[in-house]
Amino acid sequence: MASNRGVVYLGPGKVEVRSIDYPKMVNPEGKSIEHGVILKVVTTNICGSDQHMVRGRTTAPKGLVLGHEITGEIVEKGKDVEYLSVGDLVTVPFNVACGRCRTCREQQTGVCLNVNKGRAGGAYGYVDMGGWVGGQAEYVMVPYADFNLIRFPDKAQALEKILDLTMLSDILPTGFHGAVTAGVGVGSTVYVAGAGPVGLAAAASAQVLGAAVVMVGDMNADRLAHAKSVGFVPIDLKKSDKLEDLIAAVIKEPEVDASIDAVGFEAHGHGAQASSEAPATVLNSLMAITRAAGAIGIPGLYVTEDPGSKDESARQGNLRMRFGLGWAKSHRFYTGQTPVLRYNRQLMQAILHGRLNIAKVVNATVISLDDAPRGYQEFDAGVARKFVIDPHGTLKKK
Amino acid sequence: MASNRGVVYLGPGKVEVRSIDYPKMVNPEGKSIEHGVILKVVTTNICGSDQHMVRGRTTAPKGLVLGHEITGEIVEKGKDVEYLSVGDLVTVPFNVACGRCRTCREQQTGVCLNVNKGRAGGAYGYVDMGGWVGGQAEYVMVPYADFNLIRFPDKAQALEKILDLTMLSDILPTGFHGAVTAGVGVGSTVYVAGAGPVGLAAAASAQVLGAAVVMVGDMNADRLAHAKSVGFVPIDLKKSDKLEDLIAAVIKEPEVDASIDAVGFEAHGHGAQASSEAPATVLNSLMAITRAAGAIGIPGLYVTEDPGSKDESARQGNLRMRFGLGWAKSHRFYTGQTPVLRYNRQLMQAILHGRLNIAKVVNATVISLDDAPRGYQEFDAGVARKFVIDPHGTLKKK
Amino acid sequence: MASNRGVVYLGPGKVEVRSIDYPKMVNPEGKSIEHGVILKVVTTNICGSDQHMVRGRTTAPKGLVLGHEITGEIVEKGKDVEYLSVGDLVTVPFNVACGRCRTCREQQTGVCLNVNKGRAGGAYGYVDMGGWVGGQAEYVMVPYADFNLIRFPDKAQALEKILDLTMLSDILPTGFHGAVTAGVGVGSTVYVAGAGPVGLAAAASAQVLGAAVVMVGDMNADRLAHAKSVGFVPIDLKKSDKLEDLIAAVIKEPEVDASIDAVGFEAHGHGAQASSEAPATVLNSLMAITRAAGAIGIPGLYVTEDPGSKDESARQGNLRMRFGLGWAKSHRFYTGQTPVLRYNRQLMQAILHGRLNIAKVVNATVISLDDAPRGYQEFDAGVARKFVIDPHGTLKKK
Amino acid sequence: MASNRGVVYLGPGKVEVRSIDYPKMVNPEGKSIEHGVILKVVTTNICGSDQHMVRGRTTAPKGLVLGHEITGEIVEKGKDVEYLSVGDLVTVPFNVACGRCRTCREQQTGVCLNVNKGRAGGAYGYVDMGGWVGGQAEYVMVPYADFNLIRFPDKAQALEKILDLTMLSDILPTGFHGAVTAGVGVGSTVYVAGAGPVGLAAAASAQVLGAAVVMVGDMNADRLAHAKSVGFVPIDLKKSDKLEDLIAAVIKEPEVDASIDAVGFEAHGHGAQASSEAPATVLNSLMAITRAAGAIGIPGLYVTEDPGSKDESARQGNLRMRFGLGWAKSHRFYTGQTPVLRYNRQLMQAILHGRLNIAKVVNATVISLDDAPRGYQEFDAGVARKFVIDPHGTLKKK
Repeated sequence: MASNRGVVYLGPGKVEVRSIDYPKMVNPEGKSIEHGVILKVVTTNICGSDQHMVRGRTTAPKGLVLGHEITGEIVEKGKDVEYLSVGDLVTVPFNVACGRCRTCREQQTGVCLNVNKGRAGGAYGYVDMGGWVGGQAEYVMVPYADFNLIRFPDKAQALEKILDLTMLSDILPTGFHGAVTAGVGVGSTVYVAGAGPVGLAAAASAQVLGAAVVMVGDMNADRLAHAKSVGFVPIDLKKSDKLEDLIAAVIKEPEVDASIDAVGFEAHGHGAQASSEAPATVLNSLMAITRAAGAIGIPGLYVTEDPGSKDESARQGNLRMRFGLGWAKSHRFYTGQTPVLRYNRQLMQAILHGRLNIAKVVNATVISLDDAPRGYQEFDAGVARKFVIDPHGTLKKK
Repeated sequence: MASNRGVVYLGPGKVEVRSIDYPKMVNPEGKSIEHGVILKVVTTNICGSDQHMVRGRTTAPKGLVLGHEITGEIVEKGKDVEYLSVGDLVTVPFNVACGRCRTCREQQTGVCLNVNKGRAGGAYGYVDMGGWVGGQAEYVMVPYADFNLIRFPDKAQALEKILDLTMLSDILPTGFHGAVTAGVGVGSTVYVAGAGPVGLAAAASAQVLGAAVVMVGDMNADRLAHAKSVGFVPIDLKKSDKLEDLIAAVIKEPEVDASIDAVGFEAHGHGAQASSEAPATVLNSLMAITRAAGAIGIPGLYVTEDPGSKDESARQGNLRMRFGLGWAKSHRFYTGQTPVLRYNRQLMQAILHGRLNIAKVVNATVISLDDAPRGYQEFDAGVARKFVIDPHGTLKKK
Repeated sequence: MASNRGVVYLGPGKVEVRSIDYPKMVNPEGKSIEHGVILKVVTTNICGSDQHMVRGRTTAPKGLVLGHEITGEIVEKGKDVEYLSVGDLVTVPFNVACGRCRTCREQQTGVCLNVNKGRAGGAYGYVDMGGWVGGQAEYVMVPYADFNLIRFPDKAQALEKILDLTMLSDILPTGFHGAVTAGVGVGSTVYVAGAGPVGLAAAASAQVLGAAVVMVGDMNADRLAHAKSVGFVPIDLKKSDKLEDLIAAVIKEPEVDASIDAVGFEAHGHGAQASSEAPATVLNSLMAITRAAGAIGIPGLYVTEDPGSKDESARQGNLRMRFGLGWAKSHRFYTGQTPVLRYNRQLMQAILHGRLNIAKVVNATVISLDDAPRGYQEFDAGVARKFVIDPHGTLKKK
Repeated sequence: MASNRGVVYLGPGKVEVRSIDYPKMVNPEGKSIEHGVILKVVTTNICGSDQHMVRGRTTAPKGLVLGHEITGEIVEKGKDVEYLSVGDLVTVPFNVACGRCRTCREQQTGVCLNVNKGRAGGAYGYVDMGGWVGGQAEYVMVPYADFNLIRFPDKAQALEKILDLTMLSDILPTGFHGAVTAGVGVGSTVYVAGAGPVGLAAAASAQVLGAAVVMVGDMNADRLAHAKSVGFVPIDLKKSDKLEDLIAAVIKEPEVDASIDAVGFEAHGHGAQASSEAPATVLNSLMAITRAAGAIGIPGLYVTEDPGSKDESARQGNLRMRFGLGWAKSHRFYTGQTPVLRYNRQLMQAILHGRLNIAKVVNATVISLDDAPRGYQEFDAGVARKFVIDPHGTLKKK
């Protein structure tokens, strides 16, 4: 049997590349399955939500193989995989989804009812998401392959654009979901909270959806500089704790049509309060700057419990939200894991036809599997990069 | 000039019927207008949100004429009223809306940009809603009449059903908006928090939208008994502080398809915690019992500031929300004043064709204008009634 | 191996019950599959679209086993059926759908891209729909079972309501799709063309969606009398060739909010023209009576070619449509096979909770398998009945 | 009183610039109104639908003042115009709409129920559209000004972009409506029938909506060359009468995600049939090339009667549609006049922020009022230009 190596979580702040089991055609309960494929991983990205685990902020068990952003080539397939072939190059949504339950049928693959015993929704290599082995590895198993996978129509062309296409597994659809649920359309003025990779993907999504102006707010100077360099209006949150003033300085009015929270529960305060954590800060500021009858898209992760928080209320999963402000403005709030399958085919088309240069926007940076631990460190330190692991040296060879 | 009398707020707990000015064709800034009509009020209802003011929980000024649920007959019209005639019997949405701004054009009449200097959205007889004189009176002025009013097609038929039709001005569309935004459809299982008039209207709306089961939760035994008598499943919140158990006892699973918050910021705790206020209680419990990928409709009022609250955080308008729970279930949250015009014509049709017996559902109870102060008291004490003021004795004469 | 018997098409006007093969776990190309189940058929209904074939109006081959309206009990399942068990009682959508292609993922299961080599969309026992064996039989095979089937939660309860639940396989969702796409909502005035089972199902759907008035038009006196007896307003098309006048006589205006074509290409003219066929008659009359900005739902079948038509243009699949009339009124037109899975779960809930008495509405009439040929004859003659075949005498035994 | 001059229809093929009445604040019935403004026309464009009248294909009366694409400056306003001021530069939707009826409230301003005695929907300077005087003139009156008009926020900036902004009155929203109703989104493959100004506007709209590929079909070589020069894929319909082959040559499959009919009832046949008219040609070809479950947006005009047609059936307003083909593919069809107000604000924002260079795309060409008759001739001859009349020499002076 072939060998395998992967990125393993070993406790707070500690990840290592280790030998791991070669994937088997079994589900986390150990039951043999017919619907899976085994992929040779071509690219697999480091995600901000991996950081939540690595920082020790969750109950992730030691030994967990990380990685839920996966693109790969099929090397083996089960008997009930009818529409894919060995050799196909495919993009893997980070959501594990059965394609057979009520929510999957309704395109709500982020909350599949069958792939996670604990709650709705599954993912690869993630705490509390069903026990599916992660894909920051040489090989990985993907279940319900006919349903979950999208095959790239032309393999050679896809390899040319692989740094863009690798973003289809998570951050591009996630940013896009944020923009769509925020109601972004042609001519919209848009504010994105957070200039990390998901924030930049949301900004790029707003752009391709036809937004008139896209602003991106952060306190990290490097990330703001990068956001500016790829065409967005940077908003330096260190300059004021009144976001509405910063917005008005750009578009002459204090409110935008649509806003997106690409930060989530680990938000820091703005301006003067910036030093300590304040988990509801982003949401409260978005209510202040979103127009009446507007919507707030919230792809940023909020957790049910946060044992690592300094905020008492937040430890129990409570936020101090200025909900009455949103209510007074008839706001709508959209939360949750992005159902990647709802968007990835069309986003693939946009990439293949040159409409979305997402690799450039998020500053995709290729590293080897062995360099993954360093990638985690640098990303945690806030560099303006999105690390793409190349476990087999496929991209180097090109 | 004709005389006029109306219900006037005189301080916490105190309302009286007094002589007030006969309406003039001017807006709150005193500018003469061409688009208004003066109505002889046929019915005008007491609303739960009036109670917020009367309890002294807001900054409502003494002398405010109350009343935003109005049905009446046109007795005078401005030069630019083209499609209505003197003598027409009309229903008045509680939202004052110009019909000319961006949000009104988009059917978001709850947050009209022109009728309130202080913020988006106007209403009659309500604190901070633009200064429009209330309609718990003999006569009232309605601006932008062609846009705001719906004429009943047959006056005699309308007077027959006036106790149903009077609910079109607010609570029926408000309950309906709650149900629609919660995603209620044919076959839905539905939970409504609150068995007051808005909760009952939401339940009736769910019913006419085709819901399979409609449960209504409250702690008030009279209201629960009434809810049961009109066809809903009562959920006695005093029995358990785990709402999911109470739900499961009815439908064999702990989650519903859709849920509606018809309570708002003055929520009391459930079960054991029931004695003290806990403003986020309802929202948190609805996240617990709403299915993954479900929506929560929130017609219940949340305020930006609540000086009367015992809860420190709530005084500043902050709620302690378990937002991470909703996020984990991919919930959507819809807030805000209902845009009545989006629904009232079709609801009128449903009433006129016998599909919606809303008067019976909310236990409409006719009182004279002079009895209005008593109506306020009884309603505040929690009777299972909806008081309909009949200022000219029109209904009595029928 | 168990034996099997089914209804077989033997040429224009001729159907017989014959011995047929017991189902195998193979697809029409003969490939072995893992995702199928074999059902013992509990009920299977005769459908108007079966009649198109039996009348010899299509190119259906002799020997075709008919039947696409199936409810049954699982007696055998493939290795990749994970969420269903032997013994489960299930409803089968008439559409065969893979659950893995782009259109299935988008809930467009009526035009699945994988189950029919000739074109998009598959069905059981139907010409040009992929070669899947029909279910007017004792046993039938259903592929992609986890995706396609809905299990009734309580078998005993389901058997009590089996005459309602059997309509979930086709006509109830088809009528519902017609009503939904026509924009029917609370308070709508609705006209349904055709008082056959699909028309009645559309009418019942409009009712449960909250319609204010539901009118059903036909020229068959028995069907009109039945429509009236179950609560709809009958419109006798023999009385006038101006449908707008017939409508106005009921609702005092010549236009409805929403209209549904439950007739399709075999339409006869109205009024004086009633004797000869006129395939665009229904559509043209619906444009005349649908309000500006309204929609027309078209569940009635239109075919690409109609060799049996007397109308030259229609033989080549052309209709003489007054499309300019629709255009002038900004109409929307929705066509196509109903994607049953988009609706059947919620409709099942509505039935189980007593909101939809569809069996009574369509006058469900149980017959034995051997009586199926007689059922075809009587249905073709226009009786106001929906025939439900009971191949194992299950219903009789109850 | 000021003088006025305008473009007047004088019979088939004949338009002249003549002295006409200075606008009055009255509606076509002669009733004095309070809600109108008088505009000094800054730009007013010649439209393809004007050509239908000028070619003598309609019952337009001699003496009709033409022009429904208007941008202007307010020089006078009625008493009930509250939110606009003299001096404001505004864009006028071609639809006359009251803002007070049911359809206007629902954003269906293309079929306003109050501004046209004959049927739903009004327009300036157009046969059967309510008798409102056209705007290819120095001055024009616009009723319901607060509702209908959008003010440009910065007059100087607007004058800089006036050749783009002038397209907001009709063709840009019309093309956009076509694209939106066809379901165009990010990543869509799109085909637009017709490379005239509306077709190009639809193509530009598809582009800004994120389409992956936009193809534009025509038989006019100049228009195809222009379409190519501004970034679309030209499809030369003279090359084949199988549109699916021409599409497949571009995108490797014979079907697109979304298609738009920007031609309408005066369509010519494709390929070999190209010489004679064939009014259903475009629609039939779009059904052939639109994917299953796709939609067809139909901004191209279809008329209820067409006395000038060579086709017998078409004279009575009948088209020979292959409707069964669309039905088999579950197509949706969207027709009607575009409700400009639903889109023009956001499209204005897109123009002002440099996202939409519509003037360049449609080859906007400025002419004087006196040159309008020549503009009509050249446009009718098929030049690849959109003529913008500059009645006061405003653009020349810039």
